[in-house]
Amino acid sequence: MTANARAQLKINTDRLMASLDELGAIGAYRDDEAGVTGVRRLALSPEDAGGRRLVRGWFEEAGLSVSTDAIGNTYADRAGLEADLAPVMSGSHVDSVPTGGRFDGALGVLGALEVVRTLNDHGVTTRRPLTIAFFTDEEGCRFGTDMLGSAVATGRIPLGQAYALTDADGKSVKDELGAIGFLGTEPVGERKPHAYVECHVEQGPTLIHEGFDLGAVTGVQGISWRRLTITGASAHAGATPMSFRKDAGLAAAKINCRIHEMCSSGEFGPEMRATMGVITPEPGMINVIPGRVTATVDLRNPDDNAMRQAEAELDLYQQHVAAELGVTIESRQTARTPAVAFDESVIAAIESAADSQGLSHRRILAGAGHDAQEWSAVCKAAMVFTPGLNDGISHNPRELSTPKHCGDGINTLLSVILSLCDEPA
Amino acid sequence: MTANARAQLKINTDRLMASLDELGAIGAYRDDEAGVTGVRRLALSPEDAGGRRLVRGWFEEAGLSVSTDAIGNTYADRAGLEADLAPVMSGSHVDSVPTGGRFDGALGVLGALEVVRTLNDHGVTTRRPLTIAFFTDEEGCRFGTDMLGSAVATGRIPLGQAYALTDADGKSVKDELGAIGFLGTEPVGERKPHAYVECHVEQGPTLIHEGFDLGAVTGVQGISWRRLTITGASAHAGATPMSFRKDAGLAAAKINCRIHEMCSSGEFGPEMRATMGVITPEPGMINVIPGRVTATVDLRNPDDNAMRQAEAELDLYQQHVAAELGVTIESRQTARTPAVAFDESVIAAIESAADSQGLSHRRILAGAGHDAQEWSAVCKAAMVFTPGLNDGISHNPRELSTPKHCGDGINTLLSVILSLCDEPA
Repeated sequence: MTANARAQLKINTDRLMASLDELGAIGAYRDDEAGVTGVRRLALSPEDAGGRRLVRGWFEEAGLSVSTDAIGNTYADRAGLEADLAPVMSGSHVDSVPTGGRFDGALGVLGALEVVRTLNDHGVTTRRPLTIAFFTDEEGCRFGTDMLGSAVATGRIPLGQAYALTDADGKSVKDELGAIGFLGTEPVGERKPHAYVECHVEQGPTLIHEGFDLGAVTGVQGISWRRLTITGASAHAGATPMSFRKDAGLAAAKINCRIHEMCSSGEFGPEMRATMGVITPEPGMINVIPGRVTATVDLRNPDDNAMRQAEAELDLYQQHVAAELGVTIESRQTARTPAVAFDESVIAAIESAADSQGLSHRRILAGAGHDAQEWSAVCKAAMVFTPGLNDGISHNPRELSTPKHCGDGINTLLSVILSLCDEPA
Repeated sequence: MTANARAQLKINTDRLMASLDELGAIGAYRDDEAGVTGVRRLALSPEDAGGRRLVRGWFEEAGLSVSTDAIGNTYADRAGLEADLAPVMSGSHVDSVPTGGRFDGALGVLGALEVVRTLNDHGVTTRRPLTIAFFTDEEGCRFGTDMLGSAVATGRIPLGQAYALTDADGKSVKDELGAIGFLGTEPVGERKPHAYVECHVEQGPTLIHEGFDLGAVTGVQGISWRRLTITGASAHAGATPMSFRKDAGLAAAKINCRIHEMCSSGEFGPEMRATMGVITPEPGMINVIPGRVTATVDLRNPDDNAMRQAEAELDLYQQHVAAELGVTIESRQTARTPAVAFDESVIAAIESAADSQGLSHRRILAGAGHDAQEWSAVCKAAMVFTPGLNDGISHNPRELSTPKHCGDGINTLLSVILSLCDEPA
């Protein structure tokens, strides 16, 4: 096949959508209120196992050499012309959140599969080998640690530590891997790809609102989570003069307002995001001043320095509010991950591939965690984002991607993979 | 007995405290966490009935003429020297909130009884008749309307409307009055006292913190309650840029901060109080922007004009926040009662009585509703407040008054009643 003919290669979008439908039927549940069907394939559950077996079967039908590692990640290798060159890898995850959509993770796995099927259809053999894969427990909903499989494969989390994680019923990752038949024999930590590229739904509103066909993902924001326990004094709303109050609810409100001001000020970078998602006042009665509030703060920033400054500023502000209102604020860090910057050459390759497909694109930050950020620790990596309807909603049965969106994303993935596979040693 | 001897009369504090203990044992429950015993005598429950029967028996033992009206209010009349003069009335309530203290209401009823017992002990006959009483369902916790008995007796609430109120199990006030044997035959609305005076625990921190022996209550604040339903859009905290957000939790936080600023500005009077007691974000997850928040606002003000201005300002601010954040705010008024000003001459009589007892006192507003405010619609009225330990906490098993506090309050009540009973036609 000529280079020009390869550049014209297109995936079979109908086949891709049919595969998404078939996988989406495993763990499907109906949300009658929203009038939509979502999926529930919690990691290492029977539904996850069903999805894994379906996809593994498709990997095998595509003529690939399939292997599962000790943490359940499942790789499918397609030979290249130069077997001694490191492969290009593409994949994502089959598991879902409890009330998930049909595209989160599945598009990346089945998109990579569709790339292989397309190469097979046209008898294309690439210079470098190509590996497609799905990784264990990306969502972290069941065992509490997201990107678990890719983190173990790339060395961030030791295998023994991952094995020992348990779910709410006390069942361990290792036992559940065995129970579903995905406790593989391939050692973890041995795969060192040349490059990693993953297609994923954006899970946000930017692309759909701004009318872009896709996004070239420049990195993943750093995350800082804290859980605040604010203790004041419950008292009668009528009988307690303002000067006697220790209103834990007001303290939470001031902190919520302050984190939003920190974003709009630009002082901590243009991309700082902040959310107070949990606010639980006690006793929570109309005529009682809240004596205790549990609240959470979720900070995101692609700039680790700016994140540290924002955290320090918030620490100071919490002390200020505690002193001003006479409350105590216990602040506990519950998660912290540094920002990840993807590889400029892979980002550029994605932009070039999108251009070659005639697709509009912009650079964009990933707001959530992805397997690609783990692989970026061992090889150059980046991601393709596709727009989602309903304001890009995700982790929700209303998550929805059109055949156009999916097709654009995976045609771009195909083009990037071909380009990366051509790269010399 | 000489006027001077009457001025020296003192109640028997030990007997008062023993009566409080005996009534407090009915409906008593142990709060092991707080290490205290509270009471649960919900209106017209078996426990309320038990308390009523105990007190009615004491009324009869004191030689009083006891009668129960059609809403269950129970009056005990003591003859005066001039039978054609309107009586002085004193009372309060026997019912409690579900997790109440032993003094709320009980001190007013048993204090009035102790006044009668003291007059009996010393053979004192007053010029005007004296009526002591307990009123039905002051708390409003079971049937949803507080000061129910006194409001019916003084004409604010029609008897039929009160009868038709039902509890959570669908049981009506009328049926429950009958069931506990307190559906009386005396018509409501016929009692027109010369004056009404009630002793009650403050239910707030002012007296205890400022070191006053008691308070002369100048009135009851107006109350305005609203329930806000704020609707924005739930979205991923990581993937949603700040400019795309419709954060219902931030809207609630801004409103909470604003109502506190309205209090501290003094623009709506020095006594404005504001509380956001309920804040319920949905879905309430650390990494999801709250798409909907239910919140409540409790406004208090002794100045009805200032209250109206504060309500209007809050309406405007809610519109401003809705426009600024792209959320909708449904605001529903759930309660509204105007302020009540007590009678200057009765307030002055309380101050004079306190002075005669050598007790320190200050004027104070009632933060909660009381039977006295209903009686103030038909006769001159005021109240004596006593301090409470534990920052004056009430509606809580930790509510606690010392014998000194109770004795000071009821000695003052005795002195005021004697003074009011001496007043000519």
